[in-house]
Amino acid sequence: MLENKKTTIVLFSGDYDKAMAAYIIANGAAAYDHDVTIFHTFWGLNALRTENQVPIKKNFMEKMFGKMMPRGAGKLGLSKMNFAGMGPKMIKHVMKKHNAMPLPDLIEMAQEQSVKLVACTMTMDLLGLQKEELLDDIEYAGVAAYLGDASDGNVNLFI
Amino acid sequence: MLENKKTTIVLFSGDYDKAMAAYIIANGAAAYDHDVTIFHTFWGLNALRTENQVPIKKNFMEKMFGKMMPRGAGKLGLSKMNFAGMGPKMIKHVMKKHNAMPLPDLIEMAQEQSVKLVACTMTMDLLGLQKEELLDDIEYAGVAAYLGDASDGNVNLFI
Amino acid sequence: MLENKKTTIVLFSGDYDKAMAAYIIANGAAAYDHDVTIFHTFWGLNALRTENQVPIKKNFMEKMFGKMMPRGAGKLGLSKMNFAGMGPKMIKHVMKKHNAMPLPDLIEMAQEQSVKLVACTMTMDLLGLQKEELLDDIEYAGVAAYLGDASDGNVNLFI
Repeated sequence: MLENKKTTIVLFSGDYDKAMAAYIIANGAAAYDHDVTIFHTFWGLNALRTENQVPIKKNFMEKMFGKMMPRGAGKLGLSKMNFAGMGPKMIKHVMKKHNAMPLPDLIEMAQEQSVKLVACTMTMDLLGLQKEELLDDIEYAGVAAYLGDASDGNVNLFI
Repeated sequence: MLENKKTTIVLFSGDYDKAMAAYIIANGAAAYDHDVTIFHTFWGLNALRTENQVPIKKNFMEKMFGKMMPRGAGKLGLSKMNFAGMGPKMIKHVMKKHNAMPLPDLIEMAQEQSVKLVACTMTMDLLGLQKEELLDDIEYAGVAAYLGDASDGNVNLFI
Repeated sequence: MLENKKTTIVLFSGDYDKAMAAYIIANGAAAYDHDVTIFHTFWGLNALRTENQVPIKKNFMEKMFGKMMPRGAGKLGLSKMNFAGMGPKMIKHVMKKHNAMPLPDLIEMAQEQSVKLVACTMTMDLLGLQKEELLDDIEYAGVAAYLGDASDGNVNLFI
């Protein structure tokens, strides 16, 4: 039996447009029967945050990061032409008109297609993010697990 | 007969310096007989715009995006030290002094070397870009075509 | 005998967080016996600068670039939430608390693990950087050498 092809994406960026690109490629690859992993690190972790504030103990720095970083996929800014938040509104407006899926739906679709969503534990520690603040049904791992996936991969991207 | 190696680049960025890096790698790979594809998506589409304004019907949002985005490879900004446009002038000045090819020439060279230049149709729709506004002799495709190229590739990059 | 796997990273970015990601992946891959190369180009060259100013002749433009660009790995800014330099201080503060290695240590560790650090000669010329200003024990090469490494690679990333 032929093994599935493998697509492994590091999502480092916390920009709405870049995360969209990552999830569109991931969903496409899953539709073609690739084994797909998105490894969320640094600002890319923000795409996995839930919208609701969760009551957990944090120290001062962790609270600062927690407040300054966008809470979830719907809140991310754009990498270009952000215009203090007007850019994302424009993009979402045209996406709606063209029936393109917004990012939270793309993430849900990825989960339905068994795309493996991984949160980088090392950067979670640095930014003070805890499991309670992130989506359900994601995995937690470090660089070793990423390299295990990536080194057999067909499509490896850093976004 | 040995198959050619394959280099497939997603050009997501609309920055002059990042597009330069993409095209320098692409031209290098083509010189070493790789089959090379650059898949232009989101802001990377701006590198393919022609300088002249083309009279086409657009709705309000499409006109906004059309005006705000740089018209063609010569007009892109820098990812760092843009300084409201002074950065690109500095870079172009030193490039001229060192006989380095400016971006429009790198794109022309890529076309002469049969690098396949693809415009992502989904993001063209979103940003309201039409074929009449883009360079001649490019291809139009979506994420499925990209994955077809990338999944057999040797060098896959997201820039 | 089995050949080692190969990880080849283009470090284009001059951001502290992105360079950290590149070096963490590189050090991880080296620990798993990959042959690892980091090819530093454009702003990524700043990670290789030494902190001390070196007396060399430069023309006006080269002096400008030299002054405006950060002098070495410890001086880089963040890709997000830089806040005029406060962001890097915050990150370094939490890194210290979590015993995470700062970037200069990650680079030293990479050199100890025989990660091949390459400076792109073409962009050194453009930005007016000279060998005397960069770390010892690095290599100098162009896009052809990069493609030689990358086209046999297992993990290829553009950061």
